[in-house]
Amino acid sequence: MRKNGFFITFEGAEGSGKSTQIKNAVTFLKKKGRSVLMLREPGGTRISEHIRAILLDKKLKEMDPVTELLLYCAARAQIVREKILPALKKGKVVICDRFEDSTRAYQGFGRGIPLEAIERIGRLVRGDLKPDLTFVLDVDITKGLARGGRHDRIEREALSFHHRVRRGFLALAKKNPRRMVVLDTGKPLESVSRKVRERLERVFGK
Amino acid sequence: MRKNGFFITFEGAEGSGKSTQIKNAVTFLKKKGRSVLMLREPGGTRISEHIRAILLDKKLKEMDPVTELLLYCAARAQIVREKILPALKKGKVVICDRFEDSTRAYQGFGRGIPLEAIERIGRLVRGDLKPDLTFVLDVDITKGLARGGRHDRIEREALSFHHRVRRGFLALAKKNPRRMVVLDTGKPLESVSRKVRERLERVFGK
Repeated sequence: MRKNGFFITFEGAEGSGKSTQIKNAVTFLKKKGRSVLMLREPGGTRISEHIRAILLDKKLKEMDPVTELLLYCAARAQIVREKILPALKKGKVVICDRFEDSTRAYQGFGRGIPLEAIERIGRLVRGDLKPDLTFVLDVDITKGLARGGRHDRIEREALSFHHRVRRGFLALAKKNPRRMVVLDTGKPLESVSRKVRERLERVFGK
Repeated sequence: MRKNGFFITFEGAEGSGKSTQIKNAVTFLKKKGRSVLMLREPGGTRISEHIRAILLDKKLKEMDPVTELLLYCAARAQIVREKILPALKKGKVVICDRFEDSTRAYQGFGRGIPLEAIERIGRLVRGDLKPDLTFVLDVDITKGLARGGRHDRIEREALSFHHRVRRGFLALAKKNPRRMVVLDTGKPLESVSRKVRERLERVFGK
């Protein structure tokens, strides 16, 4: 059913250089002759972009953590069925800027919602779809926020929140070593980019 | 913790006369000297009203059933914490136009999402909050839609969908006979109104 479709996600804080590494991956995959669909979460469909506007609105400070969790999951349910699954069926490589690991890290580790509850909703949201490969761009929190800015509702959270999220990503990567690759963005850009390409070569060939 | 707070919900299709019976109940309760908070779902808070706008937008026909479910639940999580629980704590009577039974009827019976999945998310959304009393206004589907109109995305669903929803409400009432009171809106308005008042008298006195 999946043919040769392949699902890659990029995770990590804002300011970690996700966009740069996504471009790097797309360039590599196009050279390999693969058709690539680039998406971002939350968003990527008409309905999910409406939900994104609520989620990131910095005025809506009163948002409950459960409301936040369910809005991210609602946006995901829509992009999974409307974009990701159809593209994978056609054999495309789908690259998504953030996916379910962000929910585990931000709403689970960050907000304290039990991970089992997130997993159960996750199964409803994405069925048995899982990323085939996930890059986690690990960044020093203060550097990342300085680079990425603190524009939206999530970015404006306390530093302690962002530290819990970072530790969350690292804990998830430790639990899923075959799927998740941690990239230390403290290293020179070219060495990070090379690590991404090398990992992709293992799947798509030199 | 709940003091004398009391939580009443009104359920049923559009065009079933919910608003009329809610007014009837409010008049009764005010005569009894109770402080009443009237709410509607989805909506009732700033964030929930933003979500409502997405849910009822008739242009967004591509909405996935899981997205729909999670948006209703997100709106509910917010109104529960921001409005319903604080009002009940203060001893108010909270009257809500639609609540979780609508999710069971529309997304469960109507869309076919398993009721167990809805219950599990429900526990995350409302904790152990449950309506103390629920009136189900049962209406002949064609009459209801003729009266209420078919303006929004849900109302424009096929007749077969609305029939499943109606049967859903009746099945829920059968399973919860102590909490849920079915009102046959085919009967004269005054007899429906009297039945509501009589049921309220049992709780709040003659």
